[in-house]
Amino acid sequence: MSLLAEALREQVCRANLDLVARGLVMGTFGNVSGVDRDAGLFVIKASGVPYGELTAGHMVPISLETGLPLDTRFRPSSDTPTHHEIYRAFSCGGVAHSHSEFATAFAQARTPVACMGTTHADYFRGSVPVTRPMTRDEVESDYERNTGLVIVEAFETLGLSPEDVPAALVANHGPFTWGRDASDAVERAAVLEYLARMECLRRLVAPDAPAPADYLVNKHFNRKHGHDAYYGQKPGPGRS
Amino acid sequence: MSLLAEALREQVCRANLDLVARGLVMGTFGNVSGVDRDAGLFVIKASGVPYGELTAGHMVPISLETGLPLDTRFRPSSDTPTHHEIYRAFSCGGVAHSHSEFATAFAQARTPVACMGTTHADYFRGSVPVTRPMTRDEVESDYERNTGLVIVEAFETLGLSPEDVPAALVANHGPFTWGRDASDAVERAAVLEYLARMECLRRLVAPDAPAPADYLVNKHFNRKHGHDAYYGQKPGPGRS
Amino acid sequence: MSLLAEALREQVCRANLDLVARGLVMGTFGNVSGVDRDAGLFVIKASGVPYGELTAGHMVPISLETGLPLDTRFRPSSDTPTHHEIYRAFSCGGVAHSHSEFATAFAQARTPVACMGTTHADYFRGSVPVTRPMTRDEVESDYERNTGLVIVEAFETLGLSPEDVPAALVANHGPFTWGRDASDAVERAAVLEYLARMECLRRLVAPDAPAPADYLVNKHFNRKHGHDAYYGQKPGPGRS
Amino acid sequence: MSLLAEALREQVCRANLDLVARGLVMGTFGNVSGVDRDAGLFVIKASGVPYGELTAGHMVPISLETGLPLDTRFRPSSDTPTHHEIYRAFSCGGVAHSHSEFATAFAQARTPVACMGTTHADYFRGSVPVTRPMTRDEVESDYERNTGLVIVEAFETLGLSPEDVPAALVANHGPFTWGRDASDAVERAAVLEYLARMECLRRLVAPDAPAPADYLVNKHFNRKHGHDAYYGQKPGPGRS
Repeated sequence: MSLLAEALREQVCRANLDLVARGLVMGTFGNVSGVDRDAGLFVIKASGVPYGELTAGHMVPISLETGLPLDTRFRPSSDTPTHHEIYRAFSCGGVAHSHSEFATAFAQARTPVACMGTTHADYFRGSVPVTRPMTRDEVESDYERNTGLVIVEAFETLGLSPEDVPAALVANHGPFTWGRDASDAVERAAVLEYLARMECLRRLVAPDAPAPADYLVNKHFNRKHGHDAYYGQKPGPGRS
Repeated sequence: MSLLAEALREQVCRANLDLVARGLVMGTFGNVSGVDRDAGLFVIKASGVPYGELTAGHMVPISLETGLPLDTRFRPSSDTPTHHEIYRAFSCGGVAHSHSEFATAFAQARTPVACMGTTHADYFRGSVPVTRPMTRDEVESDYERNTGLVIVEAFETLGLSPEDVPAALVANHGPFTWGRDASDAVERAAVLEYLARMECLRRLVAPDAPAPADYLVNKHFNRKHGHDAYYGQKPGPGRS
Repeated sequence: MSLLAEALREQVCRANLDLVARGLVMGTFGNVSGVDRDAGLFVIKASGVPYGELTAGHMVPISLETGLPLDTRFRPSSDTPTHHEIYRAFSCGGVAHSHSEFATAFAQARTPVACMGTTHADYFRGSVPVTRPMTRDEVESDYERNTGLVIVEAFETLGLSPEDVPAALVANHGPFTWGRDASDAVERAAVLEYLARMECLRRLVAPDAPAPADYLVNKHFNRKHGHDAYYGQKPGPGRS
Repeated sequence: MSLLAEALREQVCRANLDLVARGLVMGTFGNVSGVDRDAGLFVIKASGVPYGELTAGHMVPISLETGLPLDTRFRPSSDTPTHHEIYRAFSCGGVAHSHSEFATAFAQARTPVACMGTTHADYFRGSVPVTRPMTRDEVESDYERNTGLVIVEAFETLGLSPEDVPAALVANHGPFTWGRDASDAVERAAVLEYLARMECLRRLVAPDAPAPADYLVNKHFNRKHGHDAYYGQKPGPGRS
């Protein structure tokens, strides 16, 4: 592999371990990938390797064009085709999948994580959507690829931008998030879990509470994202 | 004791300590056992020994035929006859009993842990059932043996396979899980607790949410179990 | 002080620190005491001392007869008269008071922690009661002594034995527990918190779930308490 | 800077780190400030600096008169004008802002944290209020200053004393607390989060539970605050 791809493996391995350190993973579940579009590949965690043993060498390179492994030492995560479809449709640099508790509960409830406040709006401009249930055909053949396709379909159907809302809940399954790189995707997975916790509590306290006005949501999203961002020490285009 | 039985004691002791490390135990509650069917015995934690002092020597060997201790240094867990009945009826290698918070709350609510998503289906093909309440006679004489018998009865009544659903909630008591060996039984106890947490949350978010289709549940269960498993690095028969 | 009283101070100090270690305390809240009936005194934590600085020397001896401090180096916990009334009415050896999260929430909801399963019945034979609200007079003069008196009144009114149910929730305030000694009282405070967590969840899952039969509750309580106890390595009278 | 201002920077830095240590912060969110009214300035955390790198040098001094930075090495927290308005209207010494989970959920539910017991009354004499939603104009120009103004307006409208209730929830945003100094403001942020947890649970257990009588609330507030306080080792005026 090239030096670049080696660096990517290191970065993606760290992001996978970070997913565990943030408490978003049960057992060997969960997987994170990162892409090098110039090199035409992404790398992803090997399937079912205990996190305690995970090294950069367990990151499997996958062709962006074919979706097939470029190295056969380890079998890649069974969710690899889902990541592949997300990279093909969305211009992101990293993808994370977890079974984190509250976000998964919303996916099992087939209920979007509504945007009810500024903590949410700092990261996602609007509700995090749920995909439609998959058909028998979609499940029984090429299941993991079809999982990616229903995510992409949800964004098209709802007219949502994957940059405004870099996350989706797959119905009766769990959350996927994406970002600038693998590490950014994991941070968003952690934030989504936090938002799902608060939204679950909000529903308990006041099920019919009014949503915040659009101008408040836009104000907060734009404080941190895009040309007029003014949060942090080095504001400007490209931050998020 | 034979060398084999000594190894089993070590393994079962580690599994008991793992039950604590995973946060499934309050005080000295909970017990794990493992069986050696060729040797005709299983070993189980001694009753009421603080986990901080637990060693392999506190694992008491019990005759599979009679259910009686083969060694009288320590009194075995008071739940020993429950484990004995599970070994007699189900072809498992280990049994775990905890009072973990959410699974016990479902047992106290006499409510099954419904299968609402793929995290559940990766481990259990369908809802985790609750036993019927026990009668006065069952409680007042040979209570712990009858506890095992109502678990077995629940699987017969519901036509459930103990391999498809390796767990039960005893009404107003708590969860029992089983598996290939003691360690596998403990892992399933931890997963059941995680699933009960998510199912409690799902019920709060959307009490009437539709269950996932059978074909999705089967897809996930079969991805990890049986002849066509393709999760992990060494798929094939006998994995779970 | 006598050697006996010094040992009691050490024991009560450890029990106070254990209350913190078990996560039952917020800030400097909470207090534990232990009695030496032969010496005619009990010792209790000094008021408002940060737990990080607490030593046996901060345990203040109080006369069982008068309720007044026998040593004026430190002001005793403001809740001292509550402990005093409990020692006068109940034959216990230690008392603990915390503001632990779930037990306090039940006290604020003026709702007993119902006995819904065997985990509860292993420690408390029936629901943990809530006191009646206190009158203006009771609050405005000798408030802390009256707090103890409404606890005692609740047990008399309900015909409850303080040995069967060694805990009470003071309405809109929080839990008090008692036991053989200070350490036992703290263990029961921890168990009560765990039971309150499970009962809160049970209510969410199935608000109308039937209570367990009395014969099941008695079976479990008697397995661990009294002459026929058979849990643990050294069963017999006096265990609990 | 003067020696006094340096000491203030150290103190405010420690309070910001304490906000993290107490689990009230997600990511780089949250900010704490402290005022030196004689010197005519307050100091506040720089914007978006990771907490792991935070030093006293990242505390930015702000003029109490103009609200502008007195030092341009670091951009101050984007919430600085909110703190400024709180210092102008209320006679406090420190202000803390977090996105802690339960308090933020109440803000997103636009529901006050009701005073349902003595734990609450020990810190806040009555419910912690929610501000009205902000108008489009208030959000689109000088948003952070207007956030401070709606807090002050809420206290005027409700006739509340900021000393009796040193906290507010900004609608669809999150909690602000204040106190004698930065450290006291952080302690109150932690207590508010604890109270919000218990109030959320209380609502689940008994949504229609009666509130405690005013005389009980006043009794507890006055036990710890003001001239007749008798909690702790050194009671008297000025304690809280």
